[in-house]
Amino acid sequence: MGETVSHAWVLKRRPQGRISREDYEWVETRLSEPGPDQVLVRTIYLSLDPTNRIWASDMDQYMPPVELGEVMRGGTLGVVEASGHADFSPGDIVQGIWGWQSHYLAEGGDGLTKMPVMPGVPLDAYMSVLGATGMTAYFGFLDIGKPQPGETVVVSAAAGAVGSIVGQIAKIQGCRAVGIAGSDDKCRHLIDDLGFDAAINYKTADLDASLAEACPDGVDIYFENTGGSITDAVFKRLNLHARVPLCGLISHYNEFDGVTGVRGPNNYQQVLMKRVLIKGFIIIDYFPQFPQGIGEMAGWLAEGRIKYRTDIVDGLENAVEAVNRLFDGANTGKLLVRCSAEP
Amino acid sequence: MGETVSHAWVLKRRPQGRISREDYEWVETRLSEPGPDQVLVRTIYLSLDPTNRIWASDMDQYMPPVELGEVMRGGTLGVVEASGHADFSPGDIVQGIWGWQSHYLAEGGDGLTKMPVMPGVPLDAYMSVLGATGMTAYFGFLDIGKPQPGETVVVSAAAGAVGSIVGQIAKIQGCRAVGIAGSDDKCRHLIDDLGFDAAINYKTADLDASLAEACPDGVDIYFENTGGSITDAVFKRLNLHARVPLCGLISHYNEFDGVTGVRGPNNYQQVLMKRVLIKGFIIIDYFPQFPQGIGEMAGWLAEGRIKYRTDIVDGLENAVEAVNRLFDGANTGKLLVRCSAEP
Repeated sequence: MGETVSHAWVLKRRPQGRISREDYEWVETRLSEPGPDQVLVRTIYLSLDPTNRIWASDMDQYMPPVELGEVMRGGTLGVVEASGHADFSPGDIVQGIWGWQSHYLAEGGDGLTKMPVMPGVPLDAYMSVLGATGMTAYFGFLDIGKPQPGETVVVSAAAGAVGSIVGQIAKIQGCRAVGIAGSDDKCRHLIDDLGFDAAINYKTADLDASLAEACPDGVDIYFENTGGSITDAVFKRLNLHARVPLCGLISHYNEFDGVTGVRGPNNYQQVLMKRVLIKGFIIIDYFPQFPQGIGEMAGWLAEGRIKYRTDIVDGLENAVEAVNRLFDGANTGKLLVRCSAEP
Repeated sequence: MGETVSHAWVLKRRPQGRISREDYEWVETRLSEPGPDQVLVRTIYLSLDPTNRIWASDMDQYMPPVELGEVMRGGTLGVVEASGHADFSPGDIVQGIWGWQSHYLAEGGDGLTKMPVMPGVPLDAYMSVLGATGMTAYFGFLDIGKPQPGETVVVSAAAGAVGSIVGQIAKIQGCRAVGIAGSDDKCRHLIDDLGFDAAINYKTADLDASLAEACPDGVDIYFENTGGSITDAVFKRLNLHARVPLCGLISHYNEFDGVTGVRGPNNYQQVLMKRVLIKGFIIIDYFPQFPQGIGEMAGWLAEGRIKYRTDIVDGLENAVEAVNRLFDGANTGKLLVRCSAEP
């Protein structure tokens, strides 16, 4: 097969504010055929996630920041094109975090997980509801939120990849699900397609009044994706012994410059008065429990009790522009880049 | 015995900022001899606590606010002077929260708990280390903090009634104890008398540099009493899976006007990055477990492993001025008002 031309986005400088084209360099490399124990993978899907903005900053964070000159980090799914490794064969579907590149030459199969592809499940599902995104919703909500039937659950960024799954699991658990999202279309989608009980467009609504109406019995679980003024408003309505799984603070990520910290919620006195539990989590802490979570989620998916939506951008060359869709509120569901066709 | 003259501080208006003399009215009443099922108690000790400022505000809080025209709420210990109730006899030592008044006529013994006074234990211990204060330290630190030997514990308001006990329990658990307090004298007291490993005077030190020096391995447990800039600095140094028992936010209490919320910590992104647990608590949630906690604390006290200090102000008439000592940083240890002599 000879040489393979690979393209990659390499981090050139730390973003200030919004991620821009100038923060990255589009690099072409030539990969030789895989030698012994090497595996050549072609990227099919690249996952774009709010945490990309964290990785691009040098803020103190949960993994080492991406270094300048490195290929940008990102969750990936691909297909083995050629292999010198006994455990991998051409056509195998593999997952990893080899990042924003069209091809990856893995030494000794490092960082590749072979996917047991289930019949009837499309590949993008493994990058959303049955991948890290779905598991973030599953473990954050169930393990930290500990929902009880009849409780009220509020989710911010509810039309996003994680939030949309959280609300649906809340319904499965017998809770009232209230979503906060950034457009009337998203709010309609939450109620009409995903079964949320109520949805609030934070860009146009009076948040205090809308939350009072949508949560007449207060808020027992606030699944936190955003921080900022949404959180300030929700905190006012937290019930005694409320739980706040802290999954993200996306409204602040574009401030990340390695120096400026994120301001905590106003109405923080509620944590004391209402004996609230706030717990930050990162999905990597739950990796060992993935088989159980994916198993239950796949069951709900098969029963039609969980729906998911992917927002697919074609072409790795469009990744930099596409990632800002997460911060502009432009996407609904899981944002993916299709780098090449499914086999 | 005839009539008893009782004095009380009645809440006249909601404090704005610091509690002032004009917020309260000094009221004299005459109590008749106790009739059937009534118990007349003379107050010996009144507990002054930061939460008094919360109760005096009409902010949404964990108990109903004290109403205007009501006797100010407060933890109390007293002696039965006369009784028409079969369960109470003159000379019995009783505890309750009958508030800022010199005498209390209890209907049916309501709100009175008879104290099983232990030999050799002075009465003020029941209002500090063996009372709600000591139990706040005990349950907040052990139940939420879940200390492990070798971990680093930072305590704010460390020379206060709760903080000084937390640091000593941290040492008993094999932790490194670092206290933050507001004077060099307090810092010396923490290290020399109470066995803290390090102490920082937040009024004069460079907090970031001092914390870095005092906590070379980061912070595993931050026992939160203050909020504000101390918290902002500690949050920067939180370790992976750090725990933050949230006991108080005293630096903000004088802002409580029923409208303005407390700002949360800066560097709140750490909750996510380090997967931090923050849990607010109020000691009333632990009432059922008091016997176990008091038992263990009394053992430590008898062994000399826990020391406590009371800061006693004489005269109920001085209570209003005295409560501000808590916010001025003027007290060390448990602040009490001695309303009348011990029997």
